[in-house]
Amino acid sequence: MGSERIAPVPFHRVSIDDRFWSPRIETNRDVTIPLGYEQCRKTGRLDAWKLNWKDGDPRRPHIFWDSDVAKWMEAAACSLRLHRDDSLEENLNNIISLMEKAQQPDGYLNSYFTAVEPEKRWTNLRDRHELYCAGHLVEAAVAHSFATGDDRFISIARRYADCIDSTFGSGADRKRGYPGHEELELALVKLFRATDERRYLELAVFFLNERGTKPHYYDLESVSRGEEPARNYEYWQAHLPVREQKEAVGHAVRAMYLYCGMADAAIETGDGELAEACRVLWRNVTERKMYITGGIGSTAQGESFTADYDLPNETAYAETCAAIGLVFWAHRMLHIDERPNSKYADVMERSLYNCVLSGVSLEGTRFFYTNPLEVRPGHAMAQSGSENNYRYSRQEWFSCSCCPTNIVRILSSFGQYIYSRTDDSIYVHLYAGSTAEMVMSGIRVNIRQETEYPWKGEVTLFVEPEKSVEFTLFLRIPGWCENAYLKLNGEEVKQFPVTDGYVHIRRLWRKDDILHLVLPMPVRKIEAHPEVRDNCGKIAIMRGPIVYCLEEEDNMPDLQDIRLDSSAELKAGYDGSLLGGCTVITGTACIRQSGGWVDKLYRPGLTETVPVGIKAIPYCLWNNRKPGGMLVWISVN
Amino acid sequence: MGSERIAPVPFHRVSIDDRFWSPRIETNRDVTIPLGYEQCRKTGRLDAWKLNWKDGDPRRPHIFWDSDVAKWMEAAACSLRLHRDDSLEENLNNIISLMEKAQQPDGYLNSYFTAVEPEKRWTNLRDRHELYCAGHLVEAAVAHSFATGDDRFISIARRYADCIDSTFGSGADRKRGYPGHEELELALVKLFRATDERRYLELAVFFLNERGTKPHYYDLESVSRGEEPARNYEYWQAHLPVREQKEAVGHAVRAMYLYCGMADAAIETGDGELAEACRVLWRNVTERKMYITGGIGSTAQGESFTADYDLPNETAYAETCAAIGLVFWAHRMLHIDERPNSKYADVMERSLYNCVLSGVSLEGTRFFYTNPLEVRPGHAMAQSGSENNYRYSRQEWFSCSCCPTNIVRILSSFGQYIYSRTDDSIYVHLYAGSTAEMVMSGIRVNIRQETEYPWKGEVTLFVEPEKSVEFTLFLRIPGWCENAYLKLNGEEVKQFPVTDGYVHIRRLWRKDDILHLVLPMPVRKIEAHPEVRDNCGKIAIMRGPIVYCLEEEDNMPDLQDIRLDSSAELKAGYDGSLLGGCTVITGTACIRQSGGWVDKLYRPGLTETVPVGIKAIPYCLWNNRKPGGMLVWISVN
Repeated sequence: MGSERIAPVPFHRVSIDDRFWSPRIETNRDVTIPLGYEQCRKTGRLDAWKLNWKDGDPRRPHIFWDSDVAKWMEAAACSLRLHRDDSLEENLNNIISLMEKAQQPDGYLNSYFTAVEPEKRWTNLRDRHELYCAGHLVEAAVAHSFATGDDRFISIARRYADCIDSTFGSGADRKRGYPGHEELELALVKLFRATDERRYLELAVFFLNERGTKPHYYDLESVSRGEEPARNYEYWQAHLPVREQKEAVGHAVRAMYLYCGMADAAIETGDGELAEACRVLWRNVTERKMYITGGIGSTAQGESFTADYDLPNETAYAETCAAIGLVFWAHRMLHIDERPNSKYADVMERSLYNCVLSGVSLEGTRFFYTNPLEVRPGHAMAQSGSENNYRYSRQEWFSCSCCPTNIVRILSSFGQYIYSRTDDSIYVHLYAGSTAEMVMSGIRVNIRQETEYPWKGEVTLFVEPEKSVEFTLFLRIPGWCENAYLKLNGEEVKQFPVTDGYVHIRRLWRKDDILHLVLPMPVRKIEAHPEVRDNCGKIAIMRGPIVYCLEEEDNMPDLQDIRLDSSAELKAGYDGSLLGGCTVITGTACIRQSGGWVDKLYRPGLTETVPVGIKAIPYCLWNNRKPGGMLVWISVN
Repeated sequence: MGSERIAPVPFHRVSIDDRFWSPRIETNRDVTIPLGYEQCRKTGRLDAWKLNWKDGDPRRPHIFWDSDVAKWMEAAACSLRLHRDDSLEENLNNIISLMEKAQQPDGYLNSYFTAVEPEKRWTNLRDRHELYCAGHLVEAAVAHSFATGDDRFISIARRYADCIDSTFGSGADRKRGYPGHEELELALVKLFRATDERRYLELAVFFLNERGTKPHYYDLESVSRGEEPARNYEYWQAHLPVREQKEAVGHAVRAMYLYCGMADAAIETGDGELAEACRVLWRNVTERKMYITGGIGSTAQGESFTADYDLPNETAYAETCAAIGLVFWAHRMLHIDERPNSKYADVMERSLYNCVLSGVSLEGTRFFYTNPLEVRPGHAMAQSGSENNYRYSRQEWFSCSCCPTNIVRILSSFGQYIYSRTDDSIYVHLYAGSTAEMVMSGIRVNIRQETEYPWKGEVTLFVEPEKSVEFTLFLRIPGWCENAYLKLNGEEVKQFPVTDGYVHIRRLWRKDDILHLVLPMPVRKIEAHPEVRDNCGKIAIMRGPIVYCLEEEDNMPDLQDIRLDSSAELKAGYDGSLLGGCTVITGTACIRQSGGWVDKLYRPGLTETVPVGIKAIPYCLWNNRKPGGMLVWISVN
């Protein structure tokens, strides 16, 4: 076996041709990315870069606007890499030109702190998103350089990174600060990888190591501003040095980006302690704080993690960005060890197929910021006021529009999550119609998948080496799957070896080798851990990686009164005309007889039930018809 | 039958000697009333009446402080009527002296608007509690006059009422405003009854009639202050004229006090339209918006009513004051028709025995402002921040301390809710050890109850006329009761007539007549209306009027995982050593086997269950031991 470190096959080496993903990716390219540009333009996010805001102008730039623009640029760059679009390229170049002009002589690059409050530069790292915006600029620039081969944007970003590098650090003349909203850490590792300039990695490691140490930088910074320090720093994951953090706390998106940076640094530096901290945090998140949809961050208060097993359904925050962040982190965790462990890919798949896709409408024009697992329109109105419509109907944009711009970047680079490789191994993490191009031992090898996943569990893998070559092919057996079945060139492979969740076959691969992997997809009734109080007495329906939900549209308004017998048979059937084509689950449940309640709010005894047909649709497709009630966790008898 | 209007037997004509109520009333008198005085003193609420607050003094009087002091005074006066206490009387007189000095030459009497913002008098009726405080002063003064026969306080209150009467009204020189927090309406009716001065009733009717009319007074008032008008007036029940209001909306305590005022005015004026509005609102509240505990107002947002059937358990607001307000209103509704209907007494009983008593600890020293029906300590912390401890542990006092001062006044005048009478009828609404003294047709008649209600359903009624006298005795058959059983002088009364929920017996009552009423109290499993989404698949346990709950202390932390079989036998047993003596309910339920969850948050299949003993205690007694989880609505199989 070789020693080359395992790495993802980059998205531009993977062409997607998939009944499930291709329409979403094309809609993202043709509708959502242009729409994102238009929203940035209309809302003033682009003009902010002209630095000509004047006191009194109502379109006052906001401290996080740069990040929205940068995330859109990253998505546009990735999209351009796969699909030429002159107008998109021109828009992108125009923004780069604005940034070029906006960059200060010392390299500083922030529309808000240059035009609105220049005197406040670097005075409030904790709250004001300055280094966060820098991180997104760097990420976008790396993607742009990679996509276009043009160095203009990455040169700007390097100058800014150098400015930051000369400002922060352990030297006596440096500030010992670190990002209040993590993001720059992972971006600097990307910049290091793109430029081979080790200073960027070292600055990332400095930020990580400094975080949560005493005296607390945010305390000192608060005192300098003449303000009271914060009571605690969980919200910013700055309550402890990162290596001592055992539990995911605080703002969920911040946490995800921090953990990504930690994993990246661990991978690049071989820091085993940092890697172990990531593994401990991973277990806390995925074994105690993750919705069945792959959503994380239970509460709107601080968009935060809460206590272990505290996963309320109706009030679930489960921000789209946090689910996307979990995919980012899972993808890194897949590469933190010598060999990937499928548990990371299981979570990556869970989030992608459920909470992430829920974030955008099928038409690509509307977005969810939060992703509740239960919606009662009247109740939500009553509880939160009508301004909180955004929780049960996708919106066109948000004043804080981090989620739409994260969706466009994850969908435009989706191919990177499917395959990884070392010098003599190929890993298939996800099943989606696609072709990955690699060179193994100097020989071009394509791996081509044909599948109707996630609606069907059959996957045909065509191994297409230019000429015969030996390597090991690892195929993930999803954690949800029992009785997987494998054929090689028509012959069943009995007792195939599975290591860390991957079946592996080492052989001299020849042209026209074909693997058939069968992942049986019965409908599953899923229980949650008994300490998840909100799901006691309830089950969720899953099939393959897909979490299902009941929508009022297909059922009835009072979804909460539906009770499913524990032995009820549930059938899966593909409906090509529904929501772009999807597998629905049907069965018979029961509801209480409705009579006898006139004038009564409470009454003794237990009402007889009557049978009722139910129909569940994939959670990721909810709210694509009329707004109405929705339920993931169903009462069970 | 006579024509005298039905009226309550006042509390001082009813002596309580009851195993359930007497300890609560005595604790209220000996502990809570003195404690309330001390809190008013310590917090500056008494000193505020010295009117010597100066800018910069941190103990700045608050616009609602007068109401707390007045409610305490009302409670103290009622207590003095029953139980001489020189120290209490002195404290009360000292406050009256302060008020006497604080009263302005024109009769105006408000500590805040006299000492802090005199220029703002009557400029913001909507928000600033000015007429609300006036109402409580009037109520207290009426109670004081009645209790002591001393006219000093009621004279002060009359001068203030006259000042208000000369300020508000329909004349060209008057303001057409009305209270933003209703209360003065009902207080003016009390003042009218105490003084026979019809102007006070007319002013109450003016306030009621003016409410919600156009042009909207609060709009005009806002414009005068240079402020934007409110978007709507549901919060203040000022969105429509009161006669057009069909649904209970907005702030629940405000609503209760308004409906009390409407009922009082309807009773005094014979206004059938107003009475009918009360009946319609009553049905909306009690058939769609009331917790099983008699709590009302589902949400913390605006301490408000929400949509029909929106009765979440964990986030229930169910303010103690609102439940007390519901008792006040129910008591008035019992007297709005020629004959009482027991449905009003049923609700009065429900609130009194459950949500009202839950508001104060057994020791009388700690208070709940909100009364949730489910508590998960970790979750609540996570959801609301630790400052919201007040939701799951009683507190010593509140900055807004309306609830403790309402508790002291309802407990100190409890006797008034038990009996009513006309000139030839006596009604027994509640069952509690007590003796009511009346004069029927010129003959002294005592009605004496002996009972261990609510723990036992047997009630012995001794009818004790000085000499034989004919009248009708009406005994309420509680709505929760089936198969009530009645004996007169040892003989079963078969097929007794029941009208509007009251069994009635007309006869020439003789000394030593004894009635035995048996109200069987099986343990009942109660279902909620199917549209109460939060209670689907759940039951609550009741026995007699008592709602039960599971506490972590007697059971386990994961109360939500307990499932009760629909046919499970539940047994009632009296435990004299528990919580001052109470009947507990025990039975066998099941919980999921706990094994097999290591590393897992979700898994397929349904876990086997194992039996578990459960023990439920009266809801009104929860949180009198260690803080912990609590649950009213239990999952059912």
